[in-house]
Amino acid sequence: MVVKVYGPHCASTKRVLVCLLEKEVEFEVIPVDLTKGEHKDPEFLKLQPFGAVPVIQDGDYTLYESRAIIRFYADKYRSQGVELLGRTAEERGVVEQWLEVEAHNFHPPAYDLAVHLLFAPIFGITPDPKVIEESEAKLLKVLDVYEERLSKSKYLGGDFFSLADISHLPFLDYIVNKMNKGYLIKERKHVSGWWDDISRRPSWKKVIQLYPPPPV
Amino acid sequence: MVVKVYGPHCASTKRVLVCLLEKEVEFEVIPVDLTKGEHKDPEFLKLQPFGAVPVIQDGDYTLYESRAIIRFYADKYRSQGVELLGRTAEERGVVEQWLEVEAHNFHPPAYDLAVHLLFAPIFGITPDPKVIEESEAKLLKVLDVYEERLSKSKYLGGDFFSLADISHLPFLDYIVNKMNKGYLIKERKHVSGWWDDISRRPSWKKVIQLYPPPPV
Repeated sequence: MVVKVYGPHCASTKRVLVCLLEKEVEFEVIPVDLTKGEHKDPEFLKLQPFGAVPVIQDGDYTLYESRAIIRFYADKYRSQGVELLGRTAEERGVVEQWLEVEAHNFHPPAYDLAVHLLFAPIFGITPDPKVIEESEAKLLKVLDVYEERLSKSKYLGGDFFSLADISHLPFLDYIVNKMNKGYLIKERKHVSGWWDDISRRPSWKKVIQLYPPPPV
Repeated sequence: MVVKVYGPHCASTKRVLVCLLEKEVEFEVIPVDLTKGEHKDPEFLKLQPFGAVPVIQDGDYTLYESRAIIRFYADKYRSQGVELLGRTAEERGVVEQWLEVEAHNFHPPAYDLAVHLLFAPIFGITPDPKVIEESEAKLLKVLDVYEERLSKSKYLGGDFFSLADISHLPFLDYIVNKMNKGYLIKERKHVSGWWDDISRRPSWKKVIQLYPPPPV
């Protein structure tokens, strides 16, 4: 069964695509044009009632929320492709911790930066220098914690690549390659080495090559 | 091994406590007084570098982020107490989806309401009627989706009580019992029935009886 993935060009969908590639799960993508409001169409809202991408359809099974979808595929295909969850409950717990840190500490300031530095035209807002400054300050503090963590552990979840690393890729890519904020990463030795490592994976290279962000 | 749980009076810690009770895991609580800034003490930051509760210590294993901790215990003690994850990958996927919806759709407006209606003195802010109004409007839309979901399914994750339900308890309790916003729940038949059901569980009753929120 080929998995259908809606909205391949969005950052959060890229989490799902990397995961599917690492798990060697076949998929096809279905474009959803957010600039045209297609994610708010009645037909789309039947799939995702909050009007957001990504959504997957796997036969008659529908699932949304990118971080739920990647957990689902890492769980369903545990013995296929790269193991992304951890082998013991304790390892999985640490992966979960860093997945949550991504969602609640890293993502909010990275998202606010992207909104104001990249996507203001799509959101119909004027970039706010105060938000940009505050978001960068928050992100700096978060990355200092990452630097400490990654000085002791090759990856966030432990000595193995996991969903916790995957979950960071789309917005790290925005920071380094789209927002001219690469210094936030480069001036931290261990964060920089980690980014170099995970962004060189063939799965990620393929995703950004095939599904660049929409032009703004 | 008795699990140490830091910060029992905070909403997010209550997720952990309910989960431990449902999984029949013995624990002791360690107070962390946020009003005195104890979560920013250097000793505490060694446990949780972002300076937040909850944290657990289970022997020499330390974990933070409430939604990671509840996943860890539901996984580690899969066959002990109430099954909270789902029996198949597909069931677990749906539980994960609603855990993510809680974190990204339900929690932000519920949290903003709580900050402005309950905890403004602790945060040192003046309650902002505009934030209150906008947060309630967002929450209404989210609860409309929940009403639709719960008209077809007894619990959020399916026909079984799960982590997805547990994760909502602390802020639903604030909404109904602390912020005088119970009508948001009561005027939605299925959301109301679901809240009545999950809030009557002995685990939750015990948690709110033993660990009420700090007075403000």
